[in-house]
Amino acid sequence: MSDSRRLGVAVVGAGYWGPNLIRNFRIAEDWDLVAVCDLDVDRAQRVLGERSGVDVHADLAEVLSRDDVDAIAIATPARTHQDIALAALHAGKHVLVEKPLAESVAQGSTMVDLARSQGLVLMADHTYCYTPAVLKIRELVEAGELGDILFVDSVRINLGLVQPDVDVFWDLAPHDLSILDFILPGGLRPTGVSAQGGDPLGAGKPCVGYLTMPLPGGAIAHVHVNWLSPTKIRQMVIGGSRRTLVWDDLNPQQRLSVYDRGVDLAQQSVDSSDDRAAATISYRLGDTWAPALPEREALGAMVAEYAACIRDQRASRTDGEAGLRVLSVLEAASASLADGGALVDAGLSTPELEAV
Amino acid sequence: MSDSRRLGVAVVGAGYWGPNLIRNFRIAEDWDLVAVCDLDVDRAQRVLGERSGVDVHADLAEVLSRDDVDAIAIATPARTHQDIALAALHAGKHVLVEKPLAESVAQGSTMVDLARSQGLVLMADHTYCYTPAVLKIRELVEAGELGDILFVDSVRINLGLVQPDVDVFWDLAPHDLSILDFILPGGLRPTGVSAQGGDPLGAGKPCVGYLTMPLPGGAIAHVHVNWLSPTKIRQMVIGGSRRTLVWDDLNPQQRLSVYDRGVDLAQQSVDSSDDRAAATISYRLGDTWAPALPEREALGAMVAEYAACIRDQRASRTDGEAGLRVLSVLEAASASLADGGALVDAGLSTPELEAV
Amino acid sequence: MSDSRRLGVAVVGAGYWGPNLIRNFRIAEDWDLVAVCDLDVDRAQRVLGERSGVDVHADLAEVLSRDDVDAIAIATPARTHQDIALAALHAGKHVLVEKPLAESVAQGSTMVDLARSQGLVLMADHTYCYTPAVLKIRELVEAGELGDILFVDSVRINLGLVQPDVDVFWDLAPHDLSILDFILPGGLRPTGVSAQGGDPLGAGKPCVGYLTMPLPGGAIAHVHVNWLSPTKIRQMVIGGSRRTLVWDDLNPQQRLSVYDRGVDLAQQSVDSSDDRAAATISYRLGDTWAPALPEREALGAMVAEYAACIRDQRASRTDGEAGLRVLSVLEAASASLADGGALVDAGLSTPELEAV
Amino acid sequence: MSDSRRLGVAVVGAGYWGPNLIRNFRIAEDWDLVAVCDLDVDRAQRVLGERSGVDVHADLAEVLSRDDVDAIAIATPARTHQDIALAALHAGKHVLVEKPLAESVAQGSTMVDLARSQGLVLMADHTYCYTPAVLKIRELVEAGELGDILFVDSVRINLGLVQPDVDVFWDLAPHDLSILDFILPGGLRPTGVSAQGGDPLGAGKPCVGYLTMPLPGGAIAHVHVNWLSPTKIRQMVIGGSRRTLVWDDLNPQQRLSVYDRGVDLAQQSVDSSDDRAAATISYRLGDTWAPALPEREALGAMVAEYAACIRDQRASRTDGEAGLRVLSVLEAASASLADGGALVDAGLSTPELEAV
Repeated sequence: MSDSRRLGVAVVGAGYWGPNLIRNFRIAEDWDLVAVCDLDVDRAQRVLGERSGVDVHADLAEVLSRDDVDAIAIATPARTHQDIALAALHAGKHVLVEKPLAESVAQGSTMVDLARSQGLVLMADHTYCYTPAVLKIRELVEAGELGDILFVDSVRINLGLVQPDVDVFWDLAPHDLSILDFILPGGLRPTGVSAQGGDPLGAGKPCVGYLTMPLPGGAIAHVHVNWLSPTKIRQMVIGGSRRTLVWDDLNPQQRLSVYDRGVDLAQQSVDSSDDRAAATISYRLGDTWAPALPEREALGAMVAEYAACIRDQRASRTDGEAGLRVLSVLEAASASLADGGALVDAGLSTPELEAV
Repeated sequence: MSDSRRLGVAVVGAGYWGPNLIRNFRIAEDWDLVAVCDLDVDRAQRVLGERSGVDVHADLAEVLSRDDVDAIAIATPARTHQDIALAALHAGKHVLVEKPLAESVAQGSTMVDLARSQGLVLMADHTYCYTPAVLKIRELVEAGELGDILFVDSVRINLGLVQPDVDVFWDLAPHDLSILDFILPGGLRPTGVSAQGGDPLGAGKPCVGYLTMPLPGGAIAHVHVNWLSPTKIRQMVIGGSRRTLVWDDLNPQQRLSVYDRGVDLAQQSVDSSDDRAAATISYRLGDTWAPALPEREALGAMVAEYAACIRDQRASRTDGEAGLRVLSVLEAASASLADGGALVDAGLSTPELEAV
Repeated sequence: MSDSRRLGVAVVGAGYWGPNLIRNFRIAEDWDLVAVCDLDVDRAQRVLGERSGVDVHADLAEVLSRDDVDAIAIATPARTHQDIALAALHAGKHVLVEKPLAESVAQGSTMVDLARSQGLVLMADHTYCYTPAVLKIRELVEAGELGDILFVDSVRINLGLVQPDVDVFWDLAPHDLSILDFILPGGLRPTGVSAQGGDPLGAGKPCVGYLTMPLPGGAIAHVHVNWLSPTKIRQMVIGGSRRTLVWDDLNPQQRLSVYDRGVDLAQQSVDSSDDRAAATISYRLGDTWAPALPEREALGAMVAEYAACIRDQRASRTDGEAGLRVLSVLEAASASLADGGALVDAGLSTPELEAV
Repeated sequence: MSDSRRLGVAVVGAGYWGPNLIRNFRIAEDWDLVAVCDLDVDRAQRVLGERSGVDVHADLAEVLSRDDVDAIAIATPARTHQDIALAALHAGKHVLVEKPLAESVAQGSTMVDLARSQGLVLMADHTYCYTPAVLKIRELVEAGELGDILFVDSVRINLGLVQPDVDVFWDLAPHDLSILDFILPGGLRPTGVSAQGGDPLGAGKPCVGYLTMPLPGGAIAHVHVNWLSPTKIRQMVIGGSRRTLVWDDLNPQQRLSVYDRGVDLAQQSVDSSDDRAAATISYRLGDTWAPALPEREALGAMVAEYAACIRDQRASRTDGEAGLRVLSVLEAASASLADGGALVDAGLSTPELEAV
């Protein structure tokens, strides 16, 4: 390592997301940002500012040959992730990758395998998982505060750039899927994936998308992603058997609301003359509770976790495997789309989990 | 008619919805509420109040034999709609029916056919279509203010009664479907219907439902209905090629917002060396406009329309045919559900429309 | 009484507010609405509906001479309250009066005095005090959940009718003042009243008003009433030493929010070289809690309280005395307005309370 | 100047606000941030980051003696503003000062006078005036879209730090007052200032404050500032004779709403037997319009304006004079507070303006 205290890091890609990583590595106590790599060196220099002492490289090989670089962070287009990650891993560098991990499960698997054999950290930048809101949701689910998860409905819509190389599922749904993977007990393991999309503009790809995922035990998850909505909505409802949680990410004054409300279904003993089981429904209309959340930038927590994983030689909570599960659902969604919305197996449902 | 000025009406059913009809017929200038019919006469009397002069009947035949009853309004469970409506039509009475029109397309068709042959009005109480908001949406769509409809996304969720005899689709989606039928040019004519449901409580029927309907021309409509949500959301986004409209029914201060925002896709002339058409996307981030809406109770406008249809011997904007289209989609949804979400033809897509 | 079970009531005035009282007395189990009195008998009949058996009178004396009338409810303009109330009390009828109780403290006092000497109930229709929200606020304050009250800020603004005979203070502030009287321990007892108003339209009276009331112990209450605001806001913030409550009456999904947040001020032991006490401020940024509220119409609870007071021969929680305290503040506000906003004594601050 | 293209700037003070100035000067095309001055050089270095080439000074004199420093930006406590500004102006440097301009009108006047005699720019960092929202409001007011201003109601409340050296008026109201100065035709020229404050915690200074300012022509402005509110509200209602504007700064999706609603007062010709003029009130309940606003950081626009003023040798829209008007109102508010809320003349109402 470059230093007993700080780890040296280079950010690869200074375009859309790179500047955010650069800013956070710069002010992180764990990290020393030593270099930025971009084919467009002027752009990289502009991001750093004029009087900066951080080096700028156009050539990735130069960056990977530096001894003061312990780790890299990749913020380039998805189609380049595999090549850059494999080169870095071969050079003995830890790797953080912007979502999605790669363009396919096959690509992502080579990255996961090489990282494992090299004993290096491979981490997916699932930024949302490091927001105070998602960390709190995970904590509440784990503590059983919501009971069993009954349904999850996620909406992520706004006026977005119609991406040249990906559809709305691959662009936006990785956020929802990585969050589901993070908060669901056992991770994201739908028993099938069905996708339906609309391309009303004739853009050649879905710009409006719906993803339905039956979960083990009769639960259901649904994701609505949309590039064409003039209003921005980022809301997730997580219905549980004990309580239901609503996460409204655009309401900073009350991002999380936990409702002690719900429907209870009780099986009654029934008169033998009536052979249908009579179900009694009861309602709880209890209080609402909004847990206080710290104000903290998610990327700061994410780069701290990256450093901790390297130091402790452990897997991240959003490691390459998590990235692969997200890719598996995205691939299944593409297959479902091509098959008119048919339910497609994503290969994630394990026998052990289904038995639960 | 009982009177040169007012039409005599009897409300059948004084349970959940009946009292609303009773209240509106009572204060309507077009109507004279002469009777209420309910098997539970005490309940009917309680709704009317002690010092009321409106007659209460337990027997439908009595009501139908009254000369001062020109028309009836049916607010009983859906399974009874057909019998009551047919009896009333045979007795020469006009008929207004609570949604859904009937339990099946087959039942509804007999009602539509008899009304036509008798020359009587058969109207569906699609109340939402008479709200100032929906009337304004229809006006804007007709005037071309939104351009072509690209997508419609409707969410209707809240903590609702798990109904004993219907699932969440049949309970809640009639609202969304009747609104779609009312505002879409040509009515509700999806090229297919796909439904997915969740029954996480083991209630024996879907309590969470998603309905996807491809529309002619590449557009897509989607409906989310849910009995298990602790928060109430009633929102419809109607994306158009010129503007996009958001209807938030729970925001009385700004129910409708029309956004002059959107994505434009322009086909560019391209260099011959590149055989792919290059698409240019541009964004409009224009102003938002919230049309003023009158404060008026929808049911009042609906009963006025009922009277006008009888007087002018014309079909209502929400006539039996409209009710049949809603039933057709609901039946297709049930078939899709039984078939794992497969796209089912609802028989509504006419060749003429598809050619447009 | 007219009946062992029900009390007979007559509503006087069928204009703006009367119909609400009529509707609630009609469906109340405690009451039998026997008559409505209005100079405009057609209007009264229209409110009752055509087939109603409730009697209509143009002459108040007729109503007061009826044996089946135990009590009246006055919903006429404020300038007529005193005459009607005194006549009714002389006739041995209990009296409910629309807010404000009267046009002046002097008028109101004669009503309070006569009711006391006659042993009859005189109650002010401070409707808001019977909403589930205000009842819950009172309960929380009484239980000490908020700690000491530090400040109250109430905003009640919307586009309102510029009243011909009253200014914005007398029109709207009775709501805020009656609520303050209801929830503050010891009632509404400001140590002074300062009022400032704006008449930017030249209407001859304030259309925008601000009321500032120092409370015993250094607390402060402030009321903003406004007829000219295009947006409707009805919000009250009640800051306490333990918790702070926000009541947003236009948010039916979360009317009350109790914040476990606040500023604590601790007196530190200080270095003798510094003769100023050093204050340490600490912050609590705890959770938010939204108590569940029943859905119940306030007027229904109010007329039930009216009946209970008559039956139990006790004073209402919003009795004539409460109405007098509201009038005292309104009169002091008018005096302050005339004196350029000077602090005016409302005569409500008692030595005992100030000593607390 | 240090360079034909860029102006050299030094930021004085790297505490609360300084880092924001540093970040914006760093990325501004007009500016070259050459130095940061802070008694705590470690803090300054931490803000700049480790690999920065910007110089750090503890000594102001060193900074002022540098030839490459054309201008400074002061982000230190208010009590130090005068000394630093005068030293900089004597050294021939342009000066930008954090709000408030100084601790008193007297102090501020010496700064304004020296800048004028030296021919240097003295600008107040009234940041809000450079937000897209406030720039748009000014544009709408200037274009007459609102008509005459009838009332302004500003609320700025949240849980804030109880400042050691200033009260809530001096801490928060400069924002509201500088905005009023910016948008009102002729600037902030109240005919009087009345202030009322609450110190319910015994902090030794008002923590809750209300400021009322009659404006020429019968209009009224009111400001509510509050450190003790658990909810954050930043809302300004500007009522005009033609339209009314609501600015909700915490609603990024619709910061500005322009309501074509209002109250019209028409003077009618009256019967001679009635010597009072009969007023007819009419309501407009028109549409609402939300102008699109660019997404742009206010501080970026502010530092650009600073550069433009230096280059064009002109006064800023938020110059020292504007800062003085804000100080005049704050001083008058303190005097009013000491005098029980009496209306105090702020010396800003000019005869010419009153005559309008």
